[in-house]
Amino acid sequence: MTDSAIPPRVLLGPGPSTVEPRVLAAMSRPLIGHLDPEFLRIMDDTQAMLRQVLCTDNRMTFAISGTGSAGMEASIVNLVEPGDRVVVVVGGVFGQRLAEQARRNGAEVITVEGEWGCIVDPDAVASAIAGGDTRVVAVVHAETSTGVLQPLDQIIAAAHAQDALVIVDAVTSVGGHPVQLDAWEVDVCYSGTQKCLSCPPGLAPISFNERALERIKERSTPVRSWYLDVGLLEGYWGQDRAYHHTAPISMAFALQEALRIVCEEGLEARYLRHRRHHLALVAGVEAMGLQMQVADPGHRLWSLNAIRVPEGVDEARVRRHLLMRYGIEIGGGLGPLAGQIWRIGLMGSSSTENNVLLVLGALEAALVEQDRPAPPGAGVAAAIAALNVTPEETSGDKSP
Amino acid sequence: MTDSAIPPRVLLGPGPSTVEPRVLAAMSRPLIGHLDPEFLRIMDDTQAMLRQVLCTDNRMTFAISGTGSAGMEASIVNLVEPGDRVVVVVGGVFGQRLAEQARRNGAEVITVEGEWGCIVDPDAVASAIAGGDTRVVAVVHAETSTGVLQPLDQIIAAAHAQDALVIVDAVTSVGGHPVQLDAWEVDVCYSGTQKCLSCPPGLAPISFNERALERIKERSTPVRSWYLDVGLLEGYWGQDRAYHHTAPISMAFALQEALRIVCEEGLEARYLRHRRHHLALVAGVEAMGLQMQVADPGHRLWSLNAIRVPEGVDEARVRRHLLMRYGIEIGGGLGPLAGQIWRIGLMGSSSTENNVLLVLGALEAALVEQDRPAPPGAGVAAAIAALNVTPEETSGDKSP
Repeated sequence: MTDSAIPPRVLLGPGPSTVEPRVLAAMSRPLIGHLDPEFLRIMDDTQAMLRQVLCTDNRMTFAISGTGSAGMEASIVNLVEPGDRVVVVVGGVFGQRLAEQARRNGAEVITVEGEWGCIVDPDAVASAIAGGDTRVVAVVHAETSTGVLQPLDQIIAAAHAQDALVIVDAVTSVGGHPVQLDAWEVDVCYSGTQKCLSCPPGLAPISFNERALERIKERSTPVRSWYLDVGLLEGYWGQDRAYHHTAPISMAFALQEALRIVCEEGLEARYLRHRRHHLALVAGVEAMGLQMQVADPGHRLWSLNAIRVPEGVDEARVRRHLLMRYGIEIGGGLGPLAGQIWRIGLMGSSSTENNVLLVLGALEAALVEQDRPAPPGAGVAAAIAALNVTPEETSGDKSP
Repeated sequence: MTDSAIPPRVLLGPGPSTVEPRVLAAMSRPLIGHLDPEFLRIMDDTQAMLRQVLCTDNRMTFAISGTGSAGMEASIVNLVEPGDRVVVVVGGVFGQRLAEQARRNGAEVITVEGEWGCIVDPDAVASAIAGGDTRVVAVVHAETSTGVLQPLDQIIAAAHAQDALVIVDAVTSVGGHPVQLDAWEVDVCYSGTQKCLSCPPGLAPISFNERALERIKERSTPVRSWYLDVGLLEGYWGQDRAYHHTAPISMAFALQEALRIVCEEGLEARYLRHRRHHLALVAGVEAMGLQMQVADPGHRLWSLNAIRVPEGVDEARVRRHLLMRYGIEIGGGLGPLAGQIWRIGLMGSSSTENNVLLVLGALEAALVEQDRPAPPGAGVAAAIAALNVTPEETSGDKSP
């Protein structure tokens, strides 16, 4: 195939999101070495901005050289030792993945399950934590497979009451929803670059607080992964600048530029933008007679909108229609929700007025194409009304 | 810092090497989704080219979403089970790293050591393999820390005589030296993108043959890493195209383009080019009165040239002079060779006549700067003579 065969896409799936030309340009700069003094300065700058975005002073705030799932694995392999009692909050695919990774690390895993599309009951999690000598609690803040925002405060308090450490998966919330590591007393948090930070996938921002680093130092067994061992990574990201592995230079250029964009917009403005476009999309979806998977509006992610597929509609055909006709990518369901939902991401630079109107229009067209029409124009009209209720306030909303 | 503060560099260290503008341009294309039909086509194309470059028909030939060291870890975690007897050939840092990773996976590790700068004695390795129920043998083909090319045939034969599987680290040889997985009967081989393939770092090409996949299927314990589990990765890279993790899209664009350049040049022409410039550099270095770390010319890597630092010369000051004055990056020594050697990489697009002449000239200047002059002009003159002995034959040598 030739390069010209790569079609333009409107990225409204569960990630990657739209990457700004500034970030693409930064990424394509000629390379420098991973121990070059100039590169070390870029690392410093990136760490400083990551701390700002994660609202933390944690020294060990950096990027794992892998995607978000590598960030998850880095959290687990460093914190968990064989035999540890680990409580995992499972409300979707990424909670399941945390449990699976903890099991592979030899943990005694206690899962606390919830209905997919609801939050997991914090009381049930607290009971599970108190039910034994819990060492680690792992919880997904923004469950990308269901669109649920899980409240964390009660879970973190219950964990710390037992001297258990808390790992938070914030892959789909960082940069789109408030995530405040220090104020919330999160011990380890990881994210991905390709969601609300609007950077290409390939790095996983991660942060360990001193309590977590202390726990890791006291391990009685070595960390099973050499590549993800935070003690070794500290040698490179810390003052020593010792060679560990070759950092993905171009991805680091991209992340620095993407974080600059986040900091220029400002976190508050960015959260408001995500919320505004989410609310408009929901208004449109509901006006079309469709249902959100997450019933409680307060538990819905602003960055990832899960919509129930109406009875009799071929969900994959709708996605294909959106992709082939309009070049719009949205996601399908995962696991038990496969075939049941569409997942529309409004993440980072993809969260724009234009994209809300576009995807509602295209969804309407896709339903017409299946002879399952929604009330004509109702979705777009409702979205416009919702957008007018919360008028554009920030300069951060750059429609494409 | 501003973007303009990133200075141009001539990349002659142990990687990253020079990345062609074509590859940078491909990398900076707007993103598409990791399950987009167009992206799946790019994956197919990349796998086909990787098979070509690795001289293999192995179905499971793909790229790990991490750097070369993640490729190493993927080989170990999939092939090694706790308690397995694993023989590791150690002639430098990367052999040590293989041993360390195998230990962390619970293996009973037998190392066969060699002097740094010499090959490890294949007879000694064969004896170690025969000394017990060896399950896996791991060996570095191109030891980046010493500049040694390790002969593999006898080691592979000894391993297979015992039904042990062979992991080959070809990070610094793939694309610069012949690497023929099928003809040599290598079971698992991994590489990096930022060496002789001249792609930015961030992916690790890897290949498993059927014997290796069979062994993995028969494991009695789960692979300890979820992120690197080849059984799960098969679901994404194979026919199912099942979601595992989000592939680093932009890096995949870059790798595809970098592999196209390799295939356009042709493997034979590319190897000859690497050999030619290596020989010219060695001629220059020796004419300057310097010594190669690897005494036997037949055991020297063409892609990575380790040069002894003469007595009384401050090696770090030379590297700083090259970087600050000429913008040239070369590497220092690692481990016991720290302070003892310089490492000059002539990898992929960095392996050019121009770079040979330039680095010899700059090295001469750096020695003058320390009042330790080499015979004036002798290095460059010898390199020119060597280059004229093996005249330019291919169009693949694109000087910058």
